[in-house]
Amino acid sequence: MSARLIIALDAMGGDHAPAVVIRGANMALRRKPNLEFVFYGREDQIRPVLDKLKKLKKVSRIVHTEDVVDSNERASVALRSGRNSSMRLAINAVRDGEAAACVSAGNTGALMAMAKFALKMVPGVDRPAMASFFPTLRGESVMLDLGANVVCDADNLVQFTVMGNAFSRSVLGLAEPSFGLLNVGSEEQKGHEELREAAAILREVELPGQFYGFVEGDDIATGTTDVVVTDGFSGNVALKTAEGTVKLYTEFLRRTFRSSPLAQLGYLLAKPAMRKLRKRVDPRRYNGAVLLGLNGIAVKSHGGSDALGFAHAITLAVDLARHRFIDTIRGDIAKLESRSPRTAQAAAV
Amino acid sequence: MSARLIIALDAMGGDHAPAVVIRGANMALRRKPNLEFVFYGREDQIRPVLDKLKKLKKVSRIVHTEDVVDSNERASVALRSGRNSSMRLAINAVRDGEAAACVSAGNTGALMAMAKFALKMVPGVDRPAMASFFPTLRGESVMLDLGANVVCDADNLVQFTVMGNAFSRSVLGLAEPSFGLLNVGSEEQKGHEELREAAAILREVELPGQFYGFVEGDDIATGTTDVVVTDGFSGNVALKTAEGTVKLYTEFLRRTFRSSPLAQLGYLLAKPAMRKLRKRVDPRRYNGAVLLGLNGIAVKSHGGSDALGFAHAITLAVDLARHRFIDTIRGDIAKLESRSPRTAQAAAV
Repeated sequence: MSARLIIALDAMGGDHAPAVVIRGANMALRRKPNLEFVFYGREDQIRPVLDKLKKLKKVSRIVHTEDVVDSNERASVALRSGRNSSMRLAINAVRDGEAAACVSAGNTGALMAMAKFALKMVPGVDRPAMASFFPTLRGESVMLDLGANVVCDADNLVQFTVMGNAFSRSVLGLAEPSFGLLNVGSEEQKGHEELREAAAILREVELPGQFYGFVEGDDIATGTTDVVVTDGFSGNVALKTAEGTVKLYTEFLRRTFRSSPLAQLGYLLAKPAMRKLRKRVDPRRYNGAVLLGLNGIAVKSHGGSDALGFAHAITLAVDLARHRFIDTIRGDIAKLESRSPRTAQAAAV
Repeated sequence: MSARLIIALDAMGGDHAPAVVIRGANMALRRKPNLEFVFYGREDQIRPVLDKLKKLKKVSRIVHTEDVVDSNERASVALRSGRNSSMRLAINAVRDGEAAACVSAGNTGALMAMAKFALKMVPGVDRPAMASFFPTLRGESVMLDLGANVVCDADNLVQFTVMGNAFSRSVLGLAEPSFGLLNVGSEEQKGHEELREAAAILREVELPGQFYGFVEGDDIATGTTDVVVTDGFSGNVALKTAEGTVKLYTEFLRRTFRSSPLAQLGYLLAKPAMRKLRKRVDPRRYNGAVLLGLNGIAVKSHGGSDALGFAHAITLAVDLARHRFIDTIRGDIAKLESRSPRTAQAAAV
């Protein structure tokens, strides 16, 4: 049905590598047909786990390397000294056309720096951004940047919007996504200068879907827009605040059900339904942040993720590859440049 | 037992004024003894509601004014043309020593501008900040700034920390609060320049409790520190993202319990416990943001709050007044100035 896709995996990235990476690939294989995997990392650690998974083994190969990027290493150091690291080799495979996408649960800053260096930016994009899905009252939405750029100017925000828009069309399958800029109020005069400037540009440029204007923190969960665009500082704060709040609520819920025998009985009856709820808010379902703006697909899995979470990051990479996501972004950014002299000018600098 | 306290109320602020303001005062009166109220606003609208609440009526008076600050009015316009507004008169009462604190559910920007103008800043504080409580796994914590200042420098953040620290000691009753700066990672080199600079100052100055360093979005709900300090943009995003996430989870929970007859029965059994949970995450419990750094107590209630929420905002104002909160802040800021030449210098500019 679908063409064979090769996915490059940094087998050594994340808290539980390489086991979680390999078992995650095994789960992804059951969900998505016609995948092949290349595991980059220490063969003596990868081999024993892979040998136990017959089906996966059949479609996988190992590229041995001793070097591993440490999770605490600075990006600049990793970039210089990690040329033979498992992370870097997985990225290189995408650069060289040997793989359709790469996935790593390793050091975020290093992954960003290496991917930017090796894959280069799509012409017209100044900086890469990290994007991910969020559950909302209306379904799912996309938010970016989630932490790649702590300071952003108006052009960055406009480019992020174009990329987020393309992402929602590719992976959420929306023809006409709505998109908004995260702010501290919906009125035009609110927020930073850069936000007002970006909004002015977005009212001018033509993108599929509709520019909603400014949205606020609570609009993320409401699903007011399909795409929420923000700088990497606010995006990271929002992402982690939402995660923390879900954990808090879940814990309060647990305590509630234990607070009386009647509540405990109630829990037993509601258990199957509750399991569905837990699945729905399960952060593993939303694992996998995409590095947007690069000439190639690189997905970052949460470092503490388990196999299920890692599998989600892989299937996200697969979806992006199958939808020819990079071509979509390239086309949209080119259109933006030809239509908006202000942005084109900035991109040319 | 406790001395009589007079609270000035902007009777016309908020979506459901003046009814919610008056009924909120009535609820606060039942919880806190020895309160008196002055309602500023349109007498013909206040009188009929107040007349029905005998006990409240006995300790209340009305100061009539026709003028009301519109919820969409720009702060600068409100400051100029709202000199006789209900909001401004309530603030003036605090300035003139006629009331121990004021509470308004009206236009946040206008309240901030008017309070800053009329009450003036505590010497050594450059800008006011908004602070509020949050539920955490460990109890409750304080976060600031929640939206008063979208851009902050290192000195602002240090001053916010001193104020948040004093706030947690006064209202949460902590002798040795822990405090941290909100960032996108806990490592020293992370985030904005201003954050790194603020952290360097906070490692030097002596404050009651302990400087934890950087915290992240999920630490807010975890309760990693008793005080979380951030700029008004990120703080506002975090606050509203948390609110939105709670709403989303609550709705998912509602759908879960309706998804099968068994789950519905389970819900019936767990209902009394669930009611306690709802109460625990009830945003009304955390209603009331304090404008810190002013020579007087001004509390902002959520504009859409009901009477219970408004009552919480009043009791917060009462607690702050009873704990002589302004004196605490004055003392701590003075100590900061004498100890940190860098901050003292900036504050003197």
